[in-house]
Amino acid sequence: MDYQTYFASRLRDLRDEGRYRVFCDLERRTGKFPMAVNHRDGETHDVTIWCSNDYMGMGMNPVVTNAIAEAVQAVGAGAGGTRNISGTTHEHVLLENELASWHGKESSLIFTSGYVANLTTLMTLGQQIPDLVIFSDALNHNSMIEGVRHSRAPKKIFKHNDPKDLDRLLSEYPKDTPKLVAFESVYSMDGDIAPIADICDVAEKHGALTFLDEVHAVGMYGEFGSGVAERDGVADRIDIIQATMGKAIGCIGGYIAGSADMVDFVRSFGAGFIFTTSLPPGIAAGARASIQHLRQHNELRIRHQERAATLKRRLRELNLPVMDSVSHIVPLLVGDATQCKQASDLLLRRHNIYVQPINYPTVPRGTERLRITPTPLHDDALMDQLVAALLDVWSTLEIDQQAA
Amino acid sequence: MDYQTYFASRLRDLRDEGRYRVFCDLERRTGKFPMAVNHRDGETHDVTIWCSNDYMGMGMNPVVTNAIAEAVQAVGAGAGGTRNISGTTHEHVLLENELASWHGKESSLIFTSGYVANLTTLMTLGQQIPDLVIFSDALNHNSMIEGVRHSRAPKKIFKHNDPKDLDRLLSEYPKDTPKLVAFESVYSMDGDIAPIADICDVAEKHGALTFLDEVHAVGMYGEFGSGVAERDGVADRIDIIQATMGKAIGCIGGYIAGSADMVDFVRSFGAGFIFTTSLPPGIAAGARASIQHLRQHNELRIRHQERAATLKRRLRELNLPVMDSVSHIVPLLVGDATQCKQASDLLLRRHNIYVQPINYPTVPRGTERLRITPTPLHDDALMDQLVAALLDVWSTLEIDQQAA
Ligand SMILES: Cc1ncc(COP(=O)(O)O)c(C=O)c1O
Ligand SMILES: Cc1ncc(COP(=O)(O)O)c(C=O)c1O
Repeated sequence: MDYQTYFASRLRDLRDEGRYRVFCDLERRTGKFPMAVNHRDGETHDVTIWCSNDYMGMGMNPVVTNAIAEAVQAVGAGAGGTRNISGTTHEHVLLENELASWHGKESSLIFTSGYVANLTTLMTLGQQIPDLVIFSDALNHNSMIEGVRHSRAPKKIFKHNDPKDLDRLLSEYPKDTPKLVAFESVYSMDGDIAPIADICDVAEKHGALTFLDEVHAVGMYGEFGSGVAERDGVADRIDIIQATMGKAIGCIGGYIAGSADMVDFVRSFGAGFIFTTSLPPGIAAGARASIQHLRQHNELRIRHQERAATLKRRLRELNLPVMDSVSHIVPLLVGDATQCKQASDLLLRRHNIYVQPINYPTVPRGTERLRITPTPLHDDALMDQLVAALLDVWSTLEIDQQAA
Repeated sequence: MDYQTYFASRLRDLRDEGRYRVFCDLERRTGKFPMAVNHRDGETHDVTIWCSNDYMGMGMNPVVTNAIAEAVQAVGAGAGGTRNISGTTHEHVLLENELASWHGKESSLIFTSGYVANLTTLMTLGQQIPDLVIFSDALNHNSMIEGVRHSRAPKKIFKHNDPKDLDRLLSEYPKDTPKLVAFESVYSMDGDIAPIADICDVAEKHGALTFLDEVHAVGMYGEFGSGVAERDGVADRIDIIQATMGKAIGCIGGYIAGSADMVDFVRSFGAGFIFTTSLPPGIAAGARASIQHLRQHNELRIRHQERAATLKRRLRELNLPVMDSVSHIVPLLVGDATQCKQASDLLLRRHNIYVQPINYPTVPRGTERLRITPTPLHDDALMDQLVAALLDVWSTLEIDQQAA
């Protein structure tokens, strides 16, 4: 087989479909958030980022950058090993304590990413709990899908955010069959939020474990910022809370929190936890500083929600096709891969505004969109620019304004 | 099902088998490598680390720590997104260029870890190349095993480091069946090294792609430190070189290097690459500084090999059971899980020396061992202490000195 020709032909197909991804080369600068320098065609351009998942700007906050810089100078760069073989540093221990306390759980466990946290935890539970059946929301993130798939446990997909459908599927199994319900709080591409309490009711009725991905919620929901489960007063009903330190917390890494024995079980059997170098201690220090800050500053969350609500209102007033989001995420429907990429290119090249096009497979075909994420640091002036630019792009491309 | 009782009972089994892992809580200190502070039972103890995979001490080298601290202060903490959605920073681009150039390849791609690099690349190639058959060395690392398994491509295991057996298995398939041979250069638990040229001969004869994990070799072998393939003059015969930035490079993260189209293919189809927050740019800056330093300082590698050879010679002279390693890794056979843990505990508590016990499933039962990793910074005085401590432990525990 001629492998190189095969690779090249598959890449050509992506280009033909308008799905070939071109990464935007950015140089963010502390003190300038949400601005960045875009390296493009050998030149640099100042742009405003409107699609970062550094949702609260914590990645640029001196509280976090100073904590990392100081820790790196004190305790070094990498951890130097897997958690078991010389790679557990005191910063890991402190961060795990902080995370457990934040979520009101007995224990927590850090992974190298939220992706690995989902993959490893679901795979481990699915493989190690005999006869476990996993019930998975239809719109769950790829990292959960792969974890379930890789576990080879039987899987049932319930309709998105639909406790009735979940109930129906759970009813197909006797109460003593081990079960796990896996879902997210905030779904990041549509911005809708799961009915957590209702899902817990159903799960409890059938004796199922609950696994909640709060990746797009930690730092942003609840008075102390630990997520939608906290906001809704149901954190104690979730057996396994999973999240990331790479988005609102502004660093990198993932984790789970729950009972001491559950966490110890995943720690002891999870291949994706065991066989990999642990996070740099400086990053753990930065994440801990970020969480401590976020816990104490609910006003950031109030401002964050206000910014998102204001942007949604302004776009709606101009008949731009905002999708039905109840969260901080503001998706604008385009509905076509090529047009979506064109819209993004125009925003960048004509208006110095960066919003990445979101195409299949991240969202279903025909629902291609621009996904806008206002942070507490996007002020009215920046919003004025964004709204004017979007109007220009929509009229230039003649995108159907009623699409949503 | 009572999940908590189940978790607790499985953990009890591990304890009964002597396989329950207790992590060693360490505080490494810049300027003090290879010393660290061990937090234990509410007290702190100064210890010497002899089992770190920060093989060259680069995680503590000011070249690296300063590069990270400066970059974090300039460009922030986390990347703020997946590579496609606002998470490609200029530091990522520069690091990928550096890695490609180091390995003499057209292109490279960064992952969040070496684990994810192996898992994602093998899974993607196995899923996406129609009818691919994967030939995997019997002692390959868990991250490769999971990648192959998860791809669901047919898999054939060849005898460890045995090109003849590989040839036999490859011969079972017609030449035009797509094939991939996955192996490591340095095997980290035994310290043996693959006959790379011979494996390439066999792979070429059968038209197979070659995938080489140089996780325990980059930074340490070859005049410019890019690994055993460089040392042996065969890097151009490897289609996909994979490695980590978490060991000799002293940071975190993994990568592959190879042809532009192969790399672009994995970039475009690899779920574990696409759906995860990218590495912090500061870490990318640190890794790049580390690689540039390692490229230029072959004397570090000469010293590293001398340290390992000296330690092996001294242990052998004292009849301590050093296993047959031809690399920088010095495994001492114990052969029993409980005794191995006891040996490690005695070293730590009586001698302030930290060497983690290596038990099943990391190594086969009956081959439990202490795995010692001397770095260029472990001087003669530290080696005197280690050798004396090992003699004491061996006689205290009456471990069979002829076991190896
Ligand atoms: C819902 C969800 N879960 C998990 C992840 C993975 O988290 P991380 O970026 O930390 O790997 C993501 C996105 O990155 C996500 O959107
Ligand atoms: C051979 C081998 N490959 C890959 C990995 C994973 O690399 P990383 O620690 O960067 O995840 C390891 C160990 O950690 C390893 O020993």
